Amino acid sequence: MTDVLDLAKRLIAAPSVTPATGAVFDEMQAMLEPLGFTVHRFTRGSGPAGSDEAPVENLFAIRTGAGPKHFAFAGHLDVVPPGEGWESGAFAPEQRGDLLYGRGAVDMKGAIACMIAAVADVPADAGTISFVITGDEEGPALHGTRALIDFMRANDHAPDLCLVGEPTSVNRLGDMMKIGRRGSVNMWLSAKGTQGHVAYPHLADNPIPRLVAAMAELEALVLDEGTDWFQPSNLEITDIEVGNPAHNVIPGEARARLSIRFNDLHSGASLSEKVTAICARHQVDVRPVISGEPFLTPPGQFSGMIAAAVEAETGVVPEASTSGGTSDARFLRSVCPVIEFGLVNATMHKTDEAVAVADLAVLARIYARIARAALES
Amino acid sequence: MTDVLDLAKRLIAAPSVTPATGAVFDEMQAMLEPLGFTVHRFTRGSGPAGSDEAPVENLFAIRTGAGPKHFAFAGHLDVVPPGEGWESGAFAPEQRGDLLYGRGAVDMKGAIACMIAAVADVPADAGTISFVITGDEEGPALHGTRALIDFMRANDHAPDLCLVGEPTSVNRLGDMMKIGRRGSVNMWLSAKGTQGHVAYPHLADNPIPRLVAAMAELEALVLDEGTDWFQPSNLEITDIEVGNPAHNVIPGEARARLSIRFNDLHSGASLSEKVTAICARHQVDVRPVISGEPFLTPPGQFSGMIAAAVEAETGVVPEASTSGGTSDARFLRSVCPVIEFGLVNATMHKTDEAVAVADLAVLARIYARIARAALES
Ligand SMILES: [Zn+2]
Ligand SMILES: [Zn+2]
Repeated sequence: MTDVLDLAKRLIAAPSVTPATGAVFDEMQAMLEPLGFTVHRFTRGSGPAGSDEAPVENLFAIRTGAGPKHFAFAGHLDVVPPGEGWESGAFAPEQRGDLLYGRGAVDMKGAIACMIAAVADVPADAGTISFVITGDEEGPALHGTRALIDFMRANDHAPDLCLVGEPTSVNRLGDMMKIGRRGSVNMWLSAKGTQGHVAYPHLADNPIPRLVAAMAELEALVLDEGTDWFQPSNLEITDIEVGNPAHNVIPGEARARLSIRFNDLHSGASLSEKVTAICARHQVDVRPVISGEPFLTPPGQFSGMIAAAVEAETGVVPEASTSGGTSDARFLRSVCPVIEFGLVNATMHKTDEAVAVADLAVLARIYARIARAALES
Repeated sequence: MTDVLDLAKRLIAAPSVTPATGAVFDEMQAMLEPLGFTVHRFTRGSGPAGSDEAPVENLFAIRTGAGPKHFAFAGHLDVVPPGEGWESGAFAPEQRGDLLYGRGAVDMKGAIACMIAAVADVPADAGTISFVITGDEEGPALHGTRALIDFMRANDHAPDLCLVGEPTSVNRLGDMMKIGRRGSVNMWLSAKGTQGHVAYPHLADNPIPRLVAAMAELEALVLDEGTDWFQPSNLEITDIEVGNPAHNVIPGEARARLSIRFNDLHSGASLSEKVTAICARHQVDVRPVISGEPFLTPPGQFSGMIAAAVEAETGVVPEASTSGGTSDARFLRSVCPVIEFGLVNATMHKTDEAVAVADLAVLARIYARIARAALES
């Protein structure tokens, strides 16, 4: 089998703080082409560097097989900034003891190395395999996986099943996969009044009581009790801002922000409507920004394939979870059933991010089993 | 009678943005000594300039008379900053038409000029008259009138009645006196929790819901329905601050500030206790700072004297009001009955502050009538 440890080291050694560009994609292209993949690379976005609209590099690679099925591996080559205090260089992969250290070791260059090692082990004629790889998952993600989906649709390359290699394992490799993720919406609340002096409240209109009343009503809201697969949707007020330094002044405006993580009983639009209706009764304006709709691939054939592959290699049956934050699966769900499975996430986004070297080989074998099963299904 | 217009011009011409020092006190001392007053000047406070504890200059002047009574005029020589856009210099008093322009024209160098002109017209043997004049009423007021009260008590110079010359008239000279003022207390609320990620609320403790619940309860509070002399006490939340820029983060702390203007059914301490008890139920801490207790000199002999003097000179019977912000009367109330009466306040603290020249002469005569009546009472 391909030396997955070497692949992981090569990917980590190409610095790629989000948004990733250039060298790390060159490495991946150089790994895929010898395996028979046609590699498409393109950049989307034309805003200034650092803005949400900044250019993003993406890679779509495909190896067309004889079989009728198309299975896709999805992921990202960008990483979060390394931060301070690393024992070895964040982009100088170093093996110490049983661990390989480096930014992206688990999130998710290590997993991408496993995918590449896996496809080397799947016969080319078994079916079509593709890689859906973005340089911006950790950033605004406006021109990353969404652009890749546009590309796949435009070129008739939509897969039948898709596995995202995010680090979903918690305590040991294989203990958890994500069959769904909650949706996420942020809302900005604003109450306007008339500024004045506290000694003459009848000449002012304090917007704070109305904002407080709206927030109290929102806090009392029970969105749902959860579902078979999702925990209850949850609303958190994350900020309140008046910005009035003068003790004797009634302010003219008050603002707040809230964040809702919600299950598939809601949509970003239905929640925006619900919150807007409550706030309207208190003359509080609402501006919602939907970060992602929930996704769910209900337990069934696809999750069964993954569980079987994991159990065969590790002896562990993975829990099918929908916990945690959003991922690019929120976009891919519109194309085909999607499930996330990958390395142990204990060190992701942290100093001295590291992967167990042994896990890389095991995950490569799991991914190969999943790909074969998906192409045979 | 003394030329009150000249006295007013001399006081205005000595710049005295709060805290007032030096020249403006020299002027006043030079006016009082020829009238038989012994002038005591002293400075209190030893903090750095600009701090609440910065040194403050004060003046206590006394002319001891044969009669048993002691009547005091109280006021301040400091003024608020002039700001921009004056037609003539803020400290270059200029008469245009019927008006005298300059910072302090009504608040309250004009009134102090009237007091001085008045005492020139009261026989020295009628009784004891004093001036209780601070250089810091518009600022923190920690070492102003409070230090003067200490001085009076230490020297056995406490008056029997005291008139504060703040600009209490609204539409025309004489239409309003203040027989009381509401008290004022500001409170800082703070709720502490545990910061975390919105996707994992069970690992965090959002302090905002507790702060919102406390604020909602405070907003619903009816402190009182008002009294014969006071409007209802009023609570205003004036600021809320979380300062959390991260959309996905549950904050660890939330703060708010409120201001209560209250009548004599409450004290700063009783309100602090009440708010603290409500907030404690929501684990919200409260730090109260009492700016002033309410004062009331109920309508009676003293207000009758003032009303009679005003009516005799203007034909107007002044309304006895308790509206508006705090004044140094909140301190003087502990010494003797105190009432405020002075010029028309329409231009106080504004650009082109001005007093009607005719009002100066009328107010000097009113003050002389009040002093005589007080010494005869
Ligand atoms: Zn990731
Ligand atoms: Zn004043």
